[in-house]
Amino acid sequence: MKQRLWTLLEDNSTPIGRNFDYFIQTLIFLSLFAFAVETLPGLSDDTQALLLAFETFCVVVFTLEYVLRIYVAQNRLKYIFSFYGLVDLLAILPFYLTTTMDLRALRSFRILRLFRAFKLIRYNRALKRFHIAARLVREEIVLFFLIALIMVYLTSAGIYYFENEAQPESFASIFHSFWWAIVTLTTVGYGDVYPVTVGGKIFTFFVLIIGVGIVTIPAGLVASALSRARQIEEGKEQEAEM
Amino acid sequence: MKQRLWTLLEDNSTPIGRNFDYFIQTLIFLSLFAFAVETLPGLSDDTQALLLAFETFCVVVFTLEYVLRIYVAQNRLKYIFSFYGLVDLLAILPFYLTTTMDLRALRSFRILRLFRAFKLIRYNRALKRFHIAARLVREEIVLFFLIALIMVYLTSAGIYYFENEAQPESFASIFHSFWWAIVTLTTVGYGDVYPVTVGGKIFTFFVLIIGVGIVTIPAGLVASALSRARQIEEGKEQEAEM
Amino acid sequence: MKQRLWTLLEDNSTPIGRNFDYFIQTLIFLSLFAFAVETLPGLSDDTQALLLAFETFCVVVFTLEYVLRIYVAQNRLKYIFSFYGLVDLLAILPFYLTTTMDLRALRSFRILRLFRAFKLIRYNRALKRFHIAARLVREEIVLFFLIALIMVYLTSAGIYYFENEAQPESFASIFHSFWWAIVTLTTVGYGDVYPVTVGGKIFTFFVLIIGVGIVTIPAGLVASALSRARQIEEGKEQEAEM
Amino acid sequence: MKQRLWTLLEDNSTPIGRNFDYFIQTLIFLSLFAFAVETLPGLSDDTQALLLAFETFCVVVFTLEYVLRIYVAQNRLKYIFSFYGLVDLLAILPFYLTTTMDLRALRSFRILRLFRAFKLIRYNRALKRFHIAARLVREEIVLFFLIALIMVYLTSAGIYYFENEAQPESFASIFHSFWWAIVTLTTVGYGDVYPVTVGGKIFTFFVLIIGVGIVTIPAGLVASALSRARQIEEGKEQEAEM
Repeated sequence: MKQRLWTLLEDNSTPIGRNFDYFIQTLIFLSLFAFAVETLPGLSDDTQALLLAFETFCVVVFTLEYVLRIYVAQNRLKYIFSFYGLVDLLAILPFYLTTTMDLRALRSFRILRLFRAFKLIRYNRALKRFHIAARLVREEIVLFFLIALIMVYLTSAGIYYFENEAQPESFASIFHSFWWAIVTLTTVGYGDVYPVTVGGKIFTFFVLIIGVGIVTIPAGLVASALSRARQIEEGKEQEAEM
Repeated sequence: MKQRLWTLLEDNSTPIGRNFDYFIQTLIFLSLFAFAVETLPGLSDDTQALLLAFETFCVVVFTLEYVLRIYVAQNRLKYIFSFYGLVDLLAILPFYLTTTMDLRALRSFRILRLFRAFKLIRYNRALKRFHIAARLVREEIVLFFLIALIMVYLTSAGIYYFENEAQPESFASIFHSFWWAIVTLTTVGYGDVYPVTVGGKIFTFFVLIIGVGIVTIPAGLVASALSRARQIEEGKEQEAEM
Repeated sequence: MKQRLWTLLEDNSTPIGRNFDYFIQTLIFLSLFAFAVETLPGLSDDTQALLLAFETFCVVVFTLEYVLRIYVAQNRLKYIFSFYGLVDLLAILPFYLTTTMDLRALRSFRILRLFRAFKLIRYNRALKRFHIAARLVREEIVLFFLIALIMVYLTSAGIYYFENEAQPESFASIFHSFWWAIVTLTTVGYGDVYPVTVGGKIFTFFVLIIGVGIVTIPAGLVASALSRARQIEEGKEQEAEM
Repeated sequence: MKQRLWTLLEDNSTPIGRNFDYFIQTLIFLSLFAFAVETLPGLSDDTQALLLAFETFCVVVFTLEYVLRIYVAQNRLKYIFSFYGLVDLLAILPFYLTTTMDLRALRSFRILRLFRAFKLIRYNRALKRFHIAARLVREEIVLFFLIALIMVYLTSAGIYYFENEAQPESFASIFHSFWWAIVTLTTVGYGDVYPVTVGGKIFTFFVLIIGVGIVTIPAGLVASALSRARQIEEGKEQEAEM
């Protein structure tokens, strides 16, 4: 019995395991879609009732799945506190919590239901290669993350110095300037805040020449690490064949 | 006869085949240009008549080409339902359909004529290397596409939670927030919608630090796959020489 | 005599050749700076006279240099019609032309003087590696350039179809939509034009997911080609040492 | 005694050296945070007094650390004039200078205290690999930096020519146009300045197609150089093991 349940839940290589996976993934997609529909303004009472019914159905299925996964797990505590165990729990917990609490607090807890989206990742094999790549460039990514944060700090302090007098509201403090700095260094550039003084513009000129690269280098690092991860994988397969 | 037609249509290595290709490609370019000219406001009747005449000429040539391609094809059904067979058909179909239908619906069908643009690709050899590269990184691209979609969903839901009250129109629902999310994560940043609350800005700060890379990594993946595709190609050529 | 002039003009390995190069490069920088200063509004007559005097001095030096380069060249016609020969000529020609023509037309010719900037490149050795890299990925760059142009065309036609009625001025025709398409696909996103209809926004959503990569891939291609160009160079040096 | 101090200050492999490092780094983070808090408008007198007290404490600790580092250094002059020696000095100097000078000038000197942020980098090992990568691609980066500057100059001069008459304030001179050029070529695109004439838009179209890549290529170069730096490092480790 436990063996058959394990096959259903964890073994993608059998037809029944695959079909169960498809069913769960479809349900996740539908429940994410339903969650987005719920936020639409001006829904009729009928639609809201339907959405609540579907939400209840989803939570029942996900709860059953969660309990069974604990049941079939070899090391139950390990599963419960693993990343996916916590995601599985967070995907259903808000529903139970909100029924016993003030409804006004409901919305802030509902946002947690979004963790359900992470479950989509669970079933994807190609992710393994990504883990190899992540290990290859972990140190560089951490370093660039640190440099990027220093860059954001220095840029914010610099622009605060140049623009604070001319635009006391947009650049009220270094913390307020963080918003401009991150929007500029990632090249989003909404245009809600931008330097207007000559000093601020010249400062931004040099920040852009040096800073933009620092923010885009990590993406290139991950890309080249992924192509090396593939080579390592292929190398292992060739060794296994020999 | 059929052999000579095949040479004309499909064999780029003979002068007559090459010239036919140049002729068709020039016609495609001119008809795309004419289509753009047609949309200019305030055209005189003479210009419109001229454009219609040229359009008719193009369709006649493309129809002839299409019929001949079916005639010379070894496996006719396979050609008709291949990607380029469908593009060839879609490039001429709207013209015939619009003459038998209400003219008001014409404009929505004309847009299909744009598929003609895809025919330009048909004749390019360097595309082969791109196919090899695509096969090399297909799984990673699919994975990143999935992660990017999850990212867009989570970002939209998060910003909806922070900004809905302050800007009920721009962030009316999660669906409305998708627009902001995609414009921000691709770093386009038009500036028509942006967070104004402190919570929304801090949320965007972290989204930008993590999310921008995820959207730009696939481009780096394709670039490194293309350089490996070239190495594979060169390796095969060296083997063939030996 | 001719031999000594050749050393002065073309041989960077001697002190006199190097110093002459430094002198010319400094003069190019200064004349570019002076050209920018000239465009400042509200210059005094004295400043304008000074700038004209300096401009005359630069042109005299550059003319002398150009004549001497022709004199010492082994194949004079080849030099005159080479890329740098033409740049050298274009850097001085506008000055002579403007003195014999209507002064109103002067400004449009002055812009040609900017070609002087290209002379800066002449002296840089690292450029060679760039040439190797360019040869390695020429076909891919051409292909992506073509795909990018098709992308711009299809995007413009699509957005024209969705937005023309809602914003008849910004999206007056496919040609007018080109502006929006290029600003969006390169992720600049000024925010002067953006879709407002639901259809246009959904269309832009998919365009951004697919299109942004196509525009950024060529940069990645060039980067990986440059690192291979360096490997090829190192390989040759090792062979030469053996 | 000197030996023990050296262990404390410079030897990360002992527990006492590591703990000292953690202490200094935490203090740097806290003092950077305090500096940002100081810029917040409307702080109470108590908070300002507290921040000044903490600032004084930090400067005392950093001064002690600086003096000790000079004391334990083998070559004292070399340390004082090294990059980190200067950063260590600049991190404390503004505090002493401001107490003996007019307080109005204080703010412009305070900005120098930001150099303290650079100290964070000092302790990171992964930086070594970055140095190797920097040496590998130094020439290409310099070349692209030069090309990018020429690109900015040519783009500014071109747009000045097209837009000066239509927008005499935004494009008042080539210097004024630099702001538009850098914001466009790095794809930030705030939207405060953009071309409005047909000529200016067509010019920008071609600038974007060619120019955007030139600005993003250096990031790709550094990324691929970093992955080669890792290979070189691994190669050396394997040799050392043999």
